[in-house]
Amino acid sequence: MSRITSVHTRDVRFPTSLELDGSDAVNVDPDYSAAYVTITTSDDETGHALVFTGGRGNELVVRAMQSYGELLRGRDVDELLGDMAAASRLLVHDSQLRWLGPEKGVSHMACGGLVNALWDLRARRAGKPLWLLLAELPAEEIVRAIDFTHIGNALTPEEALEILRRAEPGKQERINELQQHGYPAYTTTPGWLGYSDEKLVRLCKDAVAEGFDMVKLKVGGDLDHDRRRMRLAREAVGPDVKIGIDANQRWEVDDAITWVNALAEFDPWWIEEPTSTDDVLGHRDIRRGVAPVKVATGEAVANRIVFKQLLQAGAIDVMQIDSTRVAGVNENLANLVLAAKFGVPVCPHAGGVGLCELVQHFSFFDYAAVSASMRDRVIEYVDHLHEHFAEPVRMRDGNYLAPRAPGIGAEMLESSLDTWVYPDGPGWRELEAGAGGEGRS
Amino acid sequence: MSRITSVHTRDVRFPTSLELDGSDAVNVDPDYSAAYVTITTSDDETGHALVFTGGRGNELVVRAMQSYGELLRGRDVDELLGDMAAASRLLVHDSQLRWLGPEKGVSHMACGGLVNALWDLRARRAGKPLWLLLAELPAEEIVRAIDFTHIGNALTPEEALEILRRAEPGKQERINELQQHGYPAYTTTPGWLGYSDEKLVRLCKDAVAEGFDMVKLKVGGDLDHDRRRMRLAREAVGPDVKIGIDANQRWEVDDAITWVNALAEFDPWWIEEPTSTDDVLGHRDIRRGVAPVKVATGEAVANRIVFKQLLQAGAIDVMQIDSTRVAGVNENLANLVLAAKFGVPVCPHAGGVGLCELVQHFSFFDYAAVSASMRDRVIEYVDHLHEHFAEPVRMRDGNYLAPRAPGIGAEMLESSLDTWVYPDGPGWRELEAGAGGEGRS
Repeated sequence: MSRITSVHTRDVRFPTSLELDGSDAVNVDPDYSAAYVTITTSDDETGHALVFTGGRGNELVVRAMQSYGELLRGRDVDELLGDMAAASRLLVHDSQLRWLGPEKGVSHMACGGLVNALWDLRARRAGKPLWLLLAELPAEEIVRAIDFTHIGNALTPEEALEILRRAEPGKQERINELQQHGYPAYTTTPGWLGYSDEKLVRLCKDAVAEGFDMVKLKVGGDLDHDRRRMRLAREAVGPDVKIGIDANQRWEVDDAITWVNALAEFDPWWIEEPTSTDDVLGHRDIRRGVAPVKVATGEAVANRIVFKQLLQAGAIDVMQIDSTRVAGVNENLANLVLAAKFGVPVCPHAGGVGLCELVQHFSFFDYAAVSASMRDRVIEYVDHLHEHFAEPVRMRDGNYLAPRAPGIGAEMLESSLDTWVYPDGPGWRELEAGAGGEGRS
Repeated sequence: MSRITSVHTRDVRFPTSLELDGSDAVNVDPDYSAAYVTITTSDDETGHALVFTGGRGNELVVRAMQSYGELLRGRDVDELLGDMAAASRLLVHDSQLRWLGPEKGVSHMACGGLVNALWDLRARRAGKPLWLLLAELPAEEIVRAIDFTHIGNALTPEEALEILRRAEPGKQERINELQQHGYPAYTTTPGWLGYSDEKLVRLCKDAVAEGFDMVKLKVGGDLDHDRRRMRLAREAVGPDVKIGIDANQRWEVDDAITWVNALAEFDPWWIEEPTSTDDVLGHRDIRRGVAPVKVATGEAVANRIVFKQLLQAGAIDVMQIDSTRVAGVNENLANLVLAAKFGVPVCPHAGGVGLCELVQHFSFFDYAAVSASMRDRVIEYVDHLHEHFAEPVRMRDGNYLAPRAPGIGAEMLESSLDTWVYPDGPGWRELEAGAGGEGRS
């Protein structure tokens, strides 16, 4: 019998704040980081996953994965992988640990890391990329993997099954199509708040040349500044390329409405995170106030229960799931089926470190087996840090190409892990030496 | 100049799961625990606080307080205590750490612990219990301490000032009244789900004899069981004593309505935590479905933004603030003033370890300087673990007596901290030896 023998964690950080990559109105100086986890079995199989954070605090997710890891150590691998719903519940609903959330923040993200590492293990065993493994599972098994706790008034198992059954005709054709052409992306690379106008314009033009139909700009620091950048971006990309704008929760509800309307002449496609993602009713009011500009959110939505309400309240036009915020694959299955129930397109959040590699699987699966549509659906793409991954995303003509390697895509190169482990990796040591020994974090 | 010289943390746990104290439909086996923090200054002043947890995972809040503590170490004490809003923002809105919430879960609770320790320091300097320090501050200073971020569409600083000004007449009389008679409590001691019928009845009768006008029962495990216990409790306390019931988030929305209506003949006063506290819209629907039974929630509400929506949506009759879930005194000031704005009574959550000692201050302050009313307002009381505190709560005739010692009330006895520090305290060592060395956690 195969057992879980170790849950090994590493605190890996990249000094992205030096270049202001990833800078927005709220996250002014992130050091993109990964709380990295490797589960090993007594048969020497491994499952890898990571949780993305902004730098300081990465150690807390690492520590939380160690605590939750104690619940997995020694367990029968076949039993865990044979009932992923039970495996997820074992972590998410632990009777003592759940007080720390429940189902939100550090503890929930850590659960997600471990759940994803188990799915990675399972997909590797099956020799398939996660999206294909999921797409080929019977609808009943997908439904069994979903935790319907506290979403029963919006989605029942019977409804979920019906939604998945409805997508069965044509599934194999869509899988073939995905394998040939991939899935459309948009790029946030041009629009970080810390970039100069010149860099913004150049990167916008590059994006169009590379085949992207949509770019995204960070806004919310200063309105005049945003109007200037938005004008420059619109001139650079022309009238037909969509421009998303993203305030990273910077605004009060009324400010959001005023600000977005002041940018309306430049035809923004969506406003992302206009206010706190906890504020379901606020998003509903903003949506009414800024239409026809769409409202998008999700990268900081803590769990399926908040997504449920955003959908019930008619508060969002676009659901932006994140691969490492919620409790892993299982909870994102719930999110995808909820979105399908309410007819809201899912456009995943990505970027950071590893988020592109992980989250692409959910859109590929969504097209193959859930919504069966690409209409108004795009996966975020940011051109950072892919070189550290064993299987980096592959882009062509503004599309993500279908992942082929078995697993969930989170595995990083050992050399990268070694160099950037924090604070003692040689990458950090060198930076510290360069900064006159002052250090940074 | 006085500086913060250390932020010292301890992981303290009590083996309450052995007696099923604190057992409910969701928290089946809690070991009541405190992530305990002591801030020390270069003048050898100290501030103490704690964050309550259910056992496993206490180490994560401890670790998070260490991480956030780095942001305080070396800082000027006068500057911190002179602008508590800035001190709170420094922690809560740290540009990298906020990704971990934002403002929820482990990271937010840890911020709350540190903010509370700073308030403890400030109250000790002033030689006053926290409630009296707050009650005697000018209204302007209370308003300045509130973080209005993301609640601006429900409460403005001007409105907050007006609410506090309205309560100024009679403030000194109410302070005198509080010092003489205290503040009404209700007791949850009888109603834990793990207690026998005989113990339930005996403790209900004891509660009435001790002067309590309200008791609370845990429900949500099994309906027949709940009906039997509710009938026994009603018979034991008579028709005039209120009985709150508490499902600890056990139910789906529809189940909650059915279940509460099935208990209605026993005249429950409120249903607490009928479903996920993230589910604002669910609470609204439940409230409509179970009236005139009131709906109460709050011990797991992550922050002021969720409370704001519960109030905006008309989803609750009773707001149950908790002293160690949100970001400390500052955020609870926001919660109290929000409740006053919407005319909803605040009945704080307590119990656990230390929660009674801390949270009483908010009700005393509320009566003195915010709502100026005790109507339908009670503080939860549970008779556990008070013996470990330097200044345990004092009860008389079902009332909390006004705290007199300077500070926030969280300071524990060194002997208790030493005995129950986890896992190496002698209390835990002995239990482990008694369990044949098998250990537990």
